[in-house]
Amino acid sequence: MTRRPSTAQTLVADSLAGFVAAHEDLVAFGLEGKFVRRRRLTPGKVAVISGGGAGHEPLHCGFIGAGMLDAACTGHVFTSPTPDQILAAMDETDTGAGCLLVVKNYDGDVMNFEMAAEMAAGRHHVETVIVEDDAATGPSVRSRGRRGVAGTVVVEKILGAAAEQGTDLAGLKALGDGLSGRLRSMGVALRGVSLPDTARDTFALGPDEMEIGVGIHGEPGLYRTRRAGAEEIVRLLCEPVLAQLPHLAEAHPLLIVNGFGGTPPIELNRAHALARAVLGERGLVPARALVGTFVTSLDMAGLSLTLALLTPAEFALWCAPVRTAALVW
Amino acid sequence: MTRRPSTAQTLVADSLAGFVAAHEDLVAFGLEGKFVRRRRLTPGKVAVISGGGAGHEPLHCGFIGAGMLDAACTGHVFTSPTPDQILAAMDETDTGAGCLLVVKNYDGDVMNFEMAAEMAAGRHHVETVIVEDDAATGPSVRSRGRRGVAGTVVVEKILGAAAEQGTDLAGLKALGDGLSGRLRSMGVALRGVSLPDTARDTFALGPDEMEIGVGIHGEPGLYRTRRAGAEEIVRLLCEPVLAQLPHLAEAHPLLIVNGFGGTPPIELNRAHALARAVLGERGLVPARALVGTFVTSLDMAGLSLTLALLTPAEFALWCAPVRTAALVW
Repeated sequence: MTRRPSTAQTLVADSLAGFVAAHEDLVAFGLEGKFVRRRRLTPGKVAVISGGGAGHEPLHCGFIGAGMLDAACTGHVFTSPTPDQILAAMDETDTGAGCLLVVKNYDGDVMNFEMAAEMAAGRHHVETVIVEDDAATGPSVRSRGRRGVAGTVVVEKILGAAAEQGTDLAGLKALGDGLSGRLRSMGVALRGVSLPDTARDTFALGPDEMEIGVGIHGEPGLYRTRRAGAEEIVRLLCEPVLAQLPHLAEAHPLLIVNGFGGTPPIELNRAHALARAVLGERGLVPARALVGTFVTSLDMAGLSLTLALLTPAEFALWCAPVRTAALVW
Repeated sequence: MTRRPSTAQTLVADSLAGFVAAHEDLVAFGLEGKFVRRRRLTPGKVAVISGGGAGHEPLHCGFIGAGMLDAACTGHVFTSPTPDQILAAMDETDTGAGCLLVVKNYDGDVMNFEMAAEMAAGRHHVETVIVEDDAATGPSVRSRGRRGVAGTVVVEKILGAAAEQGTDLAGLKALGDGLSGRLRSMGVALRGVSLPDTARDTFALGPDEMEIGVGIHGEPGLYRTRRAGAEEIVRLLCEPVLAQLPHLAEAHPLLIVNGFGGTPPIELNRAHALARAVLGERGLVPARALVGTFVTSLDMAGLSLTLALLTPAEFALWCAPVRTAALVW
């Protein structure tokens, strides 16, 4: 029985309630609904906690479960969770081995997670890993340096698996920081973000236009250009990613084709096939690929490509069992 | 290395190639790429085969794997696969126990699967289950009677699980036919389907309009009305579904909230919470819920609600293990 109409104001709370109700076997609300957590914690394991603005689902709550996150804090749409939410998640999920915070590189997120870590001093051992994978490194009002985008899935999966296997806080911090230089993403928007309940777009693209180098908050990208065919789009995404990654002959390349919310599976699968062809021209064959909708920007049409050059140990952690709402293997 | 540009003409082939490459552990192309099949078949098990037009992904290929389908045949966008494709799938996956065909109720699909079954006479034992769950029973150029939409997932999951447990062809046919009266869906479009590579919509909806009772082929729905808030939309979907279902106090209600391709998880989760509230008013509590993007209409914005009133045996089959690209538990 709903007691008040569902509006843009209540979208996040309603959506979280719907998420938790659909996945009661895996997750539960934490204290006062401030965060979502695993239903069952593993004592003695480092608590891996993430969070960020709403509008990026299934990130982060969809990645709570065995082998990945212990808790996730969700703010309003495109708005950081508060330090109070983050601290509450630490209080409830730290079973003695400390907390690892996984934070996308946006000023608001970095500030609030930092503040929460300071407030936790004396109560929790805390380390923070900043995800900064966006190869579109143009200036942004929302972040210093590279933004954290779909590569967050790689960091959360690998650190979550390592925590599950008993890696300690210092080990997780080193593992996360080590990934940073070998992880890059690039996104394209084919239609801007419609704000909930208004159908108003944050930026307007004509049917013949596309925006390359977009982030995940409805902000404009690096440049706007004439809409190209699927192959050229994929090439425009692959090139900056490849240019910014080191040449590692022995790496296990992991490819992620991520939909931004308004792009259907048929297009994501096609982009995957085309990306493999472009990478193949460089002699690069993905050891694994993940194709789907993992890090959204509300209903933005478009997609991003992520490439991670993993060490054998990282690759084994990527392949390790995981049981969450959005990733299961 | 792509040899020719990816266009609307090659979309389906490229997308299937991308799908198979992403899920090589589960699936493989069948003879001459005419269909997609499980990598490993189970001798002596009835082969459960489905298919239909492209543009509905992850249906049907995303449901190939242990506990669900053995093969799926994909036609061009919104176009039935040919009898030749379907017969090839039967030839390759029938290991002696016969073939069960799961067909959505559209004239083209029904005709081509029927023709394939006739061509198979003397080679395969074949039974066919027609899915007809769309509560928007208005006249349609594409089907006689109720169309088959997102309820297809329920039929494929339950029959796939039963086949895996050794149910024979006659048993599967009876199980599938029995579901028909207790399975209904209703969909809404908030933005029409954009045809690939043209960004032209099949039907144009203003930002203040919505179309209730849409199918999954870009055809118009039952009626167009002023766009309502999320709660009213969900109510408009629930009511015809509930009106067409019998009152079964002992049933296990299964709820599916399905995105049509252009609607992001945050909205689907909200719709799930709101649907539970509407069902709760009737004393109906879902025993399970599935929320996500399962049966699309290219990139159409909107969603459908499906309600299935399952017997205890059917519910156990729904809950049985499944390992496919789009459903895993």
